[in-house]
Amino acid sequence: MSHTEFTPEHLKEIYDFAVQLAKDAGRMLMDGVDARCGNDSTAGIQQEQVEKDSSVDIVTQTDEDVEAFVKERITKKYPSHDFIGEETYSKGASKDYLITSAPTWCVDPLDGTVNYTHLFPMFCVSIAFILDSKPTIGVIYAPFLNQIFSACSGQGAWLNETRRLPLVRNPVPPMPEQAPKGCVFSCEWGKDRKDVPDGNLYRKIESFVNMAGEIGGRGGKGGMVHGVRSLGSATLDLAYVAMGSFDIWWEGGCWEWDVAAGICLLQEAGGLVTTANPPSDPATAEITDVKLGSRLYLAIRPAGSSATETGRESQERVVREVWKRVRHLDYSRPGA
Amino acid sequence: MSHTEFTPEHLKEIYDFAVQLAKDAGRMLMDGVDARCGNDSTAGIQQEQVEKDSSVDIVTQTDEDVEAFVKERITKKYPSHDFIGEETYSKGASKDYLITSAPTWCVDPLDGTVNYTHLFPMFCVSIAFILDSKPTIGVIYAPFLNQIFSACSGQGAWLNETRRLPLVRNPVPPMPEQAPKGCVFSCEWGKDRKDVPDGNLYRKIESFVNMAGEIGGRGGKGGMVHGVRSLGSATLDLAYVAMGSFDIWWEGGCWEWDVAAGICLLQEAGGLVTTANPPSDPATAEITDVKLGSRLYLAIRPAGSSATETGRESQERVVREVWKRVRHLDYSRPGA
Repeated sequence: MSHTEFTPEHLKEIYDFAVQLAKDAGRMLMDGVDARCGNDSTAGIQQEQVEKDSSVDIVTQTDEDVEAFVKERITKKYPSHDFIGEETYSKGASKDYLITSAPTWCVDPLDGTVNYTHLFPMFCVSIAFILDSKPTIGVIYAPFLNQIFSACSGQGAWLNETRRLPLVRNPVPPMPEQAPKGCVFSCEWGKDRKDVPDGNLYRKIESFVNMAGEIGGRGGKGGMVHGVRSLGSATLDLAYVAMGSFDIWWEGGCWEWDVAAGICLLQEAGGLVTTANPPSDPATAEITDVKLGSRLYLAIRPAGSSATETGRESQERVVREVWKRVRHLDYSRPGA
Repeated sequence: MSHTEFTPEHLKEIYDFAVQLAKDAGRMLMDGVDARCGNDSTAGIQQEQVEKDSSVDIVTQTDEDVEAFVKERITKKYPSHDFIGEETYSKGASKDYLITSAPTWCVDPLDGTVNYTHLFPMFCVSIAFILDSKPTIGVIYAPFLNQIFSACSGQGAWLNETRRLPLVRNPVPPMPEQAPKGCVFSCEWGKDRKDVPDGNLYRKIESFVNMAGEIGGRGGKGGMVHGVRSLGSATLDLAYVAMGSFDIWWEGGCWEWDVAAGICLLQEAGGLVTTANPPSDPATAEITDVKLGSRLYLAIRPAGSSATETGRESQERVVREVWKRVRHLDYSRPGA
């Protein structure tokens, strides 16, 4: 089945379905929070057990329950579509990239698992619908924040279904002239903490410090970004780039279910997403759209034109300025 | 006027006043957001001007307007109380610590200014009432997140006036046995980005990497924290420690108006806050309450007892584990 067989009406139906599904899944995540806080009438009984298990088991269970719920709803409504979920994928033996040109749902039932475990509100459910390998519908719901982000190809990107993204859009501001100076830079420390010289941890840190250091410092690489932010959720990082809150997000190591919905959202908002790893010729290399399964992502917020540049030109300028300052990360991937 | 002259009824009246004041001030912050997004009927006219000024002037103006509003309301209602606000203080020549034993309001009209400038939701107003040099009432309102945090000495700490903090409290979990492993560690990059060997930037980074690195790595200092978070708001960092979401917050460089309300909140929730700078004998030094104006803060979340430790013992254990891994920061302060 090719992309062209989906009429606008059909896509709209799928979009509405995905938004409602995200809301229902988000409510399940909050039920898990309430149970752990003892805000549920049945929770008191389970409370002791929960604490004994350091809350890890209940999180795993919620994660699996939400994925099963989402998968069941999707396969019932759209039995011909493929489904890739974080939980089922992670339990499989293969780490291959499995998304084909077929209509495919790519779902992270719980992004920001560490945040959820600790009840820090930056967690969400992420639901993407992919056509011809392109994220075409994306819905991200962060229930503790009461924020739902949604986008459908050609329909724009939205916060809480009423506020078009980016937030500032009359006009959309261009990227700062001296970027990365003036930019909010979002990045994540991730799980790879091996104390290996030139391992991913040290490559990331060197990159972060280059972006943060004063202008003229770091052997000329100092970027003096306006702020460095780490939320612990790749999905919400992308949502806040789409919102225009973060100017730059640079990350290696996450997976397609972490970013598929966010990429749709960002592209619909007018953002750019390409690879995190700098090419050999950062000043002149062609800037291509990111490969969904590449595990290496560099996102730039929506940007308007200035007197001297189009929005896209200013985004590409910032991509090159980031590439000059960051290290190559090592996250290999079969089939991507 | 000493603390003892305030009856519980009088304190309750001041507390209610502070909560309402924070709500009103937060609404002014959101009016500034709406004006920049063009969601206000009068905003269209000003939009071009706003973008021309890179939105910095409107942020400064909102910051000053909110402080003037809060100050006027306080001085009208409580003319005998002292007032210290971030905006008025920063314009003064002195950097001395000015809080005395007199009843004093300590206010940050806008914490997370960079976030506010970029419309990232992690910004708030922070209002503290200090008696005998102790933060006695603290109210923090993050209007874009719809989260209000409030506390009054002896009355507990609350989220949105209905949910007692920490969120998980039946029972409150002890600190992880192998902490900092298992902990969410919150830290900020700050504004001091000087590329000076052994300057604050490098001391911070070395500390962050020690906390993050694998166990056994970093010359034995690897702490393998569960996650590293940077929000860009010291006030909200403290609020999330009080909520139990962040286990550890370590920071140097912020000021009393950034932390006064948050310290009240955290202490009422059962947390601990002491100095960021490790003493010469981290394993045995007495762990004293933080000095409000010290600019050096280490906060540990509320903790319950286990079979082998009281909550306080487990918090002190974590303080020592952090002190072993972090560097001494250089933020001197006259009079603190």
